Amino acid sequence: MSTELPDVQASPPDIKINLTRVGVKNVKKLVEVARAGGKRPVILISDFHIFVDLPSEMKGANLSRNFEAMYEVLEEAISMPIYEVEELCSEVARRLLLLHDYATTAEVGMRSEYMLKRKTPVMKISCQEPAVIFAEAKAYRTPSGVRIKKIVGAEVVGMTTCPCAQELMKERVSERLRERGMGEEEIESLLQLIPMPTHNQRGRGMISIEAEDEVKIPMDKIIRIIEASMSSKTYEVLKRPDEAAIVESAHEKPMFVEDCVREMAKRVVENFTELPDDSTITIVQINEESIHQHDAVAERVASMGDLRRELGASE
Amino acid sequence: MSTELPDVQASPPDIKINLTRVGVKNVKKLVEVARAGGKRPVILISDFHIFVDLPSEMKGANLSRNFEAMYEVLEEAISMPIYEVEELCSEVARRLLLLHDYATTAEVGMRSEYMLKRKTPVMKISCQEPAVIFAEAKAYRTPSGVRIKKIVGAEVVGMTTCPCAQELMKERVSERLRERGMGEEEIESLLQLIPMPTHNQRGRGMISIEAEDEVKIPMDKIIRIIEASMSSKTYEVLKRPDEAAIVESAHEKPMFVEDCVREMAKRVVENFTELPDDSTITIVQINEESIHQHDAVAERVASMGDLRRELGASE
Amino acid sequence: MSTELPDVQASPPDIKINLTRVGVKNVKKLVEVARAGGKRPVILISDFHIFVDLPSEMKGANLSRNFEAMYEVLEEAISMPIYEVEELCSEVARRLLLLHDYATTAEVGMRSEYMLKRKTPVMKISCQEPAVIFAEAKAYRTPSGVRIKKIVGAEVVGMTTCPCAQELMKERVSERLRERGMGEEEIESLLQLIPMPTHNQRGRGMISIEAEDEVKIPMDKIIRIIEASMSSKTYEVLKRPDEAAIVESAHEKPMFVEDCVREMAKRVVENFTELPDDSTITIVQINEESIHQHDAVAERVASMGDLRRELGASE
Amino acid sequence: MSTELPDVQASPPDIKINLTRVGVKNVKKLVEVARAGGKRPVILISDFHIFVDLPSEMKGANLSRNFEAMYEVLEEAISMPIYEVEELCSEVARRLLLLHDYATTAEVGMRSEYMLKRKTPVMKISCQEPAVIFAEAKAYRTPSGVRIKKIVGAEVVGMTTCPCAQELMKERVSERLRERGMGEEEIESLLQLIPMPTHNQRGRGMISIEAEDEVKIPMDKIIRIIEASMSSKTYEVLKRPDEAAIVESAHEKPMFVEDCVREMAKRVVENFTELPDDSTITIVQINEESIHQHDAVAERVASMGDLRRELGASE
Repeated sequence: MSTELPDVQASPPDIKINLTRVGVKNVKKLVEVARAGGKRPVILISDFHIFVDLPSEMKGANLSRNFEAMYEVLEEAISMPIYEVEELCSEVARRLLLLHDYATTAEVGMRSEYMLKRKTPVMKISCQEPAVIFAEAKAYRTPSGVRIKKIVGAEVVGMTTCPCAQELMKERVSERLRERGMGEEEIESLLQLIPMPTHNQRGRGMISIEAEDEVKIPMDKIIRIIEASMSSKTYEVLKRPDEAAIVESAHEKPMFVEDCVREMAKRVVENFTELPDDSTITIVQINEESIHQHDAVAERVASMGDLRRELGASE
Repeated sequence: MSTELPDVQASPPDIKINLTRVGVKNVKKLVEVARAGGKRPVILISDFHIFVDLPSEMKGANLSRNFEAMYEVLEEAISMPIYEVEELCSEVARRLLLLHDYATTAEVGMRSEYMLKRKTPVMKISCQEPAVIFAEAKAYRTPSGVRIKKIVGAEVVGMTTCPCAQELMKERVSERLRERGMGEEEIESLLQLIPMPTHNQRGRGMISIEAEDEVKIPMDKIIRIIEASMSSKTYEVLKRPDEAAIVESAHEKPMFVEDCVREMAKRVVENFTELPDDSTITIVQINEESIHQHDAVAERVASMGDLRRELGASE
Repeated sequence: MSTELPDVQASPPDIKINLTRVGVKNVKKLVEVARAGGKRPVILISDFHIFVDLPSEMKGANLSRNFEAMYEVLEEAISMPIYEVEELCSEVARRLLLLHDYATTAEVGMRSEYMLKRKTPVMKISCQEPAVIFAEAKAYRTPSGVRIKKIVGAEVVGMTTCPCAQELMKERVSERLRERGMGEEEIESLLQLIPMPTHNQRGRGMISIEAEDEVKIPMDKIIRIIEASMSSKTYEVLKRPDEAAIVESAHEKPMFVEDCVREMAKRVVENFTELPDDSTITIVQINEESIHQHDAVAERVASMGDLRRELGASE
Repeated sequence: MSTELPDVQASPPDIKINLTRVGVKNVKKLVEVARAGGKRPVILISDFHIFVDLPSEMKGANLSRNFEAMYEVLEEAISMPIYEVEELCSEVARRLLLLHDYATTAEVGMRSEYMLKRKTPVMKISCQEPAVIFAEAKAYRTPSGVRIKKIVGAEVVGMTTCPCAQELMKERVSERLRERGMGEEEIESLLQLIPMPTHNQRGRGMISIEAEDEVKIPMDKIIRIIEASMSSKTYEVLKRPDEAAIVESAHEKPMFVEDCVREMAKRVVENFTELPDDSTITIVQINEESIHQHDAVAERVASMGDLRRELGASE
């Protein structure tokens, strides 16, 4: 029945111009993510985008028909447990190119909230910490078949304390102690015991890694690196001893947005030793400054090779 | 020409049920707000909603026709400078009731970003601070004419520092000083000079006041009260001496969300002495906790009379 | 250890004013929703708010301590499968009142995305349709114990076609046929076969029902009513025969926002026969008008008794 | 006074890695845009981001100090009327490079709501249509001085009608007329008079043009092109004759997202004849499909030279 209906999309358009991307976004789908150790899989509501390119000779990408194919692929792919969400994107992108011979590239991306299980530092209380995970696959048609590049990344919230304001407070306090007749050595030794106040705030760290499809990029590692690269992690439940411990440790590790990005970069180099030099690393830190209404931002986009060279030179 | 067209909306509907509100929202309009002292008026892009009620006998409120009327009213109203945005809402609501004899109530509301001109505390640098202002008017048809109740309110961002974590830090530091052999009196006197660190964050205070149309509710006063009722104001530009001053003064006035709401309530009672007892006051504080991913909230909804009684009893 | 720490929150505040609500919002938690027929449970990431009231004599609600209690309750409650999400909210609200003797009310609410499994009308293709579900429980301390009122609701997207523009198009087309010499009867009979174009758009219907805790309010029924009360449902996958069927059927059932609200009201009365007269029903329809940038809105807030009376009178 | 304070940012960091971007975002500022013909200037609340790069030897970009400089520049720049918002961005970016000798690039971007004055097609009623405008400048330090590339763009909402569903409806209606005994020619001639229904929706078109600083890129032209490249414009006020005219004309020009992008591309080539071949054009169309909950998207990113070649070849 469907074949007898008019196929407006396949007809040549009046204006013959290539299109870089045609597709759909904000597609919500349940995705079942298998977990290690026999644990029950987590089912996430994920947000997908799916694009192909379109040659100048075709009026439309037939989104409804293509989308149906995409949907079936997605359905089939998620009926078997997957261990890495980027495999799902790669699989859909690969099949899209096989199904649609007019397309030379296909892009499939997903973004999802994800809950991390963590324990508080002192009382060891279990809590669930929301994070965002994302993955993308871009398939290219080549003479020898289909080549796929993928992106895997995450965004995690933590706490940052400002080094600059803390230094200013230290100056102020030292001055007062001096006025009271205290000696420099005594002041220094006293301030070893007393963390200086500063403004602190929610920060959001983001790392995304782009590499060839074969390269393994464990999402867990990315998340752990971001968590470790702020002044402190945050926790949804904090009893007093935990709250005190977190506030103190955050004040012992003051960090600018710049510091967070550099620390993430260093840890990526240290922890992803197997990653090829031509992988692209994007690292971003955004601090929701508590003394301003605007946000502070730092970003590094670089090849893994460049990061390695810069770090090597700095050691 | 328009009158010959079919009037679907005026026909009786199949299901005869009254409607509480029919109208439009997310209507963007330029509003010119006149300023005192001969300054050039500010033109704001505001977001309006406009509703009337609808009796069971009418199929539709004829949104397009009504909306056109609303639009004309708005156009005319904003062609003359207004000093209080709520006057604009009252005027539109009043005319809507006169134009549409089927309606017994009309609601008109607006919400807009607004820029406050402020100076930093030490260096007196001018800066622009964004805030949100809103107003609403509800007109009721009564035997003796139209009665209007209005709402005026604002939402402002500031900084809050946590009293609980600060007290915990004080205990920790005192304990360390004791271990070092320092006496209680000496510790106490030393900690007078040194502000203890704590987590701090962006907070958002909101006050809205509902009263009869005749009552004056200066928006400026509301904004000043919210700004004064957090641990510190925030500023878009801060040189070092300003940054140090703000961090220190915020740590000298630690506040829970509960404290912010209570301080706003107290200031409303002190500053709006002319407000009748039957005015309704809504006060909300939301802190974007830097040690959690969730927000802390406190709220009070009360008549002005109740606030006065509670404050009087507490003195 | 925790008990030795200072308890800032329990101390009396400087400003002794009652607080209507103190608590947290934007708390993300995994919630496991059991499903009928032995199907694997769905795990949703839900957004919670949790409030208690606070007497004037207490400085703070001790959010971190309370929150920990809230968290444990939530943890325990969700470890057993639940069939109705509002049971979860009721359970948490009830326990909060038992745990915190200073509070006289406790409010717990959740909001979550949810995926509906649906089949397209012609080709019977399975697809997943996102919807929003929400529930709230408000517990009051009474002389005889704890009384709970709950809210259950959902928000679903569908398609609406405008009756007014369709009527205008019918007039235009009729006029053209008249000019061509066609008689009134022939025109009428011809236009029976040809659906007239009109503007159409995404609409969002919302129903929320508030009742005593004992009353059963099946979420499924609410969702089905909203879906049935627009010009057509929407589907994430549509092959051509389905797309044609949906466009045609939507044009055969043109609806204003007012019509959607009234149809939902009628279906609520018909389908919730067991609901007591004092339940409160809130019904909202929002159309993202394709010919405007603003949205059209209709709303009814009424007791179930009033809806029954109005519908009875209109028959 | 400021110089005596510690300068944490200028010290060398522990981890010596370059940063691509360091700065602030979500900075709200009033911007006064002068208008031709002696009209009073419009004052917009705009959202800015301001970045510089940072060498590995510097710990921090000294956001507060830099930001202050940025702020002064912005303040000064907006005190004189500007005719093109991108000039403002270029000016700030240029000065940033002059002020900060460690930086090799500086990026300044702004985004703002803007109100277009339009008249409805039939009744010529004036109305205000919201749009989004944006501009960006990127300054590079070169041996011969500073080189600036800029981006100017806009995003405008309109209405799109689906060609595919319309063709399907035409088939359906033709079949019915055939069954009634009508001949093919008669059917064809009749359907010339009667626009077929289809699903339609809000669409959003976006064009951004990147070029050397000297090139003129009138924002007005961009906006006009987007408005003309959908099935119809939308209007905030529509009396019945206007509503009918718009619905009909939109149905006479059905367009896929692909068609909108191609039409925008064609108009850019025709209207920006003076634009150099190496300018980069990005064109996006997003349709909020009324039959789905997801959005359809088409995009073209190309050099002006490529667009010219493709269009030339297709004629």
